[in-house]
Amino acid sequence: MARRSALPPVHDAAVLRARLDRAREAAAGTGLVIAPGSDLRYLIGQPGGSFERLTALVIPADGAPALVVPKLEAPGFDGLEELGVEVLTWVDGVDPYALAAERLGGAERVAVSDFTPALHVFGIRDALPKAEQVLAGPIVRELRMRKDAAEIAALRKAGAAIDRVHARVGEWLRPGRTEAEVGADIAAALVEEGHTEADFVIVGSGPNGASPHHALSDRVIETGDVVVVDIGGPVAEGYNSDSTRTYAVGNPRDADIAATYAVLQEAQQAAVDAVRPGATAESIDAAARDVITAAGFGDYFIHRTGHGIGLDVHEEPYIVAGNDLRLEEGMAFSIEPGIYQAGRWGARIEDIVVVTSDGVESMNNQPHDLVVLT
Amino acid sequence: MARRSALPPVHDAAVLRARLDRAREAAAGTGLVIAPGSDLRYLIGQPGGSFERLTALVIPADGAPALVVPKLEAPGFDGLEELGVEVLTWVDGVDPYALAAERLGGAERVAVSDFTPALHVFGIRDALPKAEQVLAGPIVRELRMRKDAAEIAALRKAGAAIDRVHARVGEWLRPGRTEAEVGADIAAALVEEGHTEADFVIVGSGPNGASPHHALSDRVIETGDVVVVDIGGPVAEGYNSDSTRTYAVGNPRDADIAATYAVLQEAQQAAVDAVRPGATAESIDAAARDVITAAGFGDYFIHRTGHGIGLDVHEEPYIVAGNDLRLEEGMAFSIEPGIYQAGRWGARIEDIVVVTSDGVESMNNQPHDLVVLT
Repeated sequence: MARRSALPPVHDAAVLRARLDRAREAAAGTGLVIAPGSDLRYLIGQPGGSFERLTALVIPADGAPALVVPKLEAPGFDGLEELGVEVLTWVDGVDPYALAAERLGGAERVAVSDFTPALHVFGIRDALPKAEQVLAGPIVRELRMRKDAAEIAALRKAGAAIDRVHARVGEWLRPGRTEAEVGADIAAALVEEGHTEADFVIVGSGPNGASPHHALSDRVIETGDVVVVDIGGPVAEGYNSDSTRTYAVGNPRDADIAATYAVLQEAQQAAVDAVRPGATAESIDAAARDVITAAGFGDYFIHRTGHGIGLDVHEEPYIVAGNDLRLEEGMAFSIEPGIYQAGRWGARIEDIVVVTSDGVESMNNQPHDLVVLT
Repeated sequence: MARRSALPPVHDAAVLRARLDRAREAAAGTGLVIAPGSDLRYLIGQPGGSFERLTALVIPADGAPALVVPKLEAPGFDGLEELGVEVLTWVDGVDPYALAAERLGGAERVAVSDFTPALHVFGIRDALPKAEQVLAGPIVRELRMRKDAAEIAALRKAGAAIDRVHARVGEWLRPGRTEAEVGADIAAALVEEGHTEADFVIVGSGPNGASPHHALSDRVIETGDVVVVDIGGPVAEGYNSDSTRTYAVGNPRDADIAATYAVLQEAQQAAVDAVRPGATAESIDAAARDVITAAGFGDYFIHRTGHGIGLDVHEEPYIVAGNDLRLEEGMAFSIEPGIYQAGRWGARIEDIVVVTSDGVESMNNQPHDLVVLT
């Protein structure tokens, strides 16, 4: 027997019932199959666990939603009755896909959540061979990307927790220590400051900072290093923090960092300032990129400006060229331009922001300057 | 930016090259698409990370395997050249599914790994609309369920680590403490004793022990409780431990536990003793179940006897009625019968065993008796 400990369930039944109703409406006649993960947590308050045995929320176009769940896993789900969700348990020997198919009736289209394992995608396909299979992501993200007050409060709590960790980075980031040692201290601090776990810890020192997805290594930090620290994790409500600050260990050895960093800081602020209802996602990307390109560093900013955040660290909306989505109140995403000088150093500034009725609120409020640790 | 820290890669290139060759042979003309996870770790020594951007190992029937990977993620993969795996990087704006489809050529059948997210399953489907999609699980599990010496050594190391934790459970399992408090101490001990993380910690006290998948709760442990402790996690090589012992906190209040536990212990031993090359998986299940049923507790043993284990905590072979797979040397699985008295107590004994050339080796070697903590 083995399962990850359940996360604490959300128990605001009225909110969850409304989300279930909106999901069915948004599906517009398409049957929904939602596997364990953050989509499931969004809809029933509990993420479940993904295993080789099918657990899935089935929302038919007509009739009550049902959770198809192995009998042994069923005790892990609370309060479903209150949500109007029936529980259809199954034991080894029963075909769970037939159970799901029966609940979906003669659906012509079935939308499965984006991270449903192929194992279950094909199980559903074979149980409903005439139904077209599509992704549920486009349906569910319409709901999930507009955060309500409770969700924004959770993001604010997560942001404050990660700000407290950044405020303490000087305790650990010292010459002579490895990135991995510093990272372990930061991971512990994430939990101390209110996260349920450290989901990711990037300490990119010197040349490693120029690789945006570098995590940790045994590189020993030296005086003069510029160090990118990009960290985050969930709070108990399931919502995530994600914030980056760039540090210098003593006076930076690279003479170009100060002027380049000033460009980056200006770019990040320009993107934050551009956020308001009605602005497009790509216009926020452009706001940062234009500043960096104008200063001659366009080729050194090698990723999109940001990603949505909530129950997932990466979700809609993506702040990227080509995304003409118009921002609305309640959308939450990162703004994290970077400039990367291969082989020498990298710098990035990242805040999570939420679109308000007339502008923007930042979840992260640590200073944006290069933090020189002496 | 956010990614989980990479696990330490395996670097025995010859072993990995041989696995890649065997996967292609086993696929017998079907193209393989392997998403991040334990299948990928098995084949290239590194699990990768699963995100909204496609990372996948593509093994065509003819031609070199290739890793399709976002340019930003590529630095996280080492030594692929040594394995004969080409790296096909892509940036936002490029269609990664077209890249994968091109490498697969005109494959009529494409097998995708079982836990490939629907997002990528449908991406591949749409890029190769004429190809039949099937699961890669049946192909890859033929390889993965026969462990080599290095894999068995890693399982032995994991088993010894979890045995050391069970030997210490008396330090933490005390009346007046909650399951959650005890579980937190056990989780810390998993890491102290050599796991890279605590993957799961079940402390099922009193009536909670009768729910096999109960994890942790705020129930306060009382004198007289019977407590199921089922714990495990990976060691650095990626292979997992999973072991259960049942404890009594002082003298058990339920007078029937001693006799019932004796039946369980006999059943578990009977199943272990039945393991040898050529025995069927279901015969091992029957060996345990027959003892329990004969004693009148058949209805209280409500799950299969075991599951395979390796890079995943649950993998082939499953030790369950209906599985006529014949065991072979190198197969590794749990033997974990349980007896559950709803509302009062449960008991389970679980060891990981490996099939040897002429019998069985247990990875877990703590005593099987009910452990009475006084």
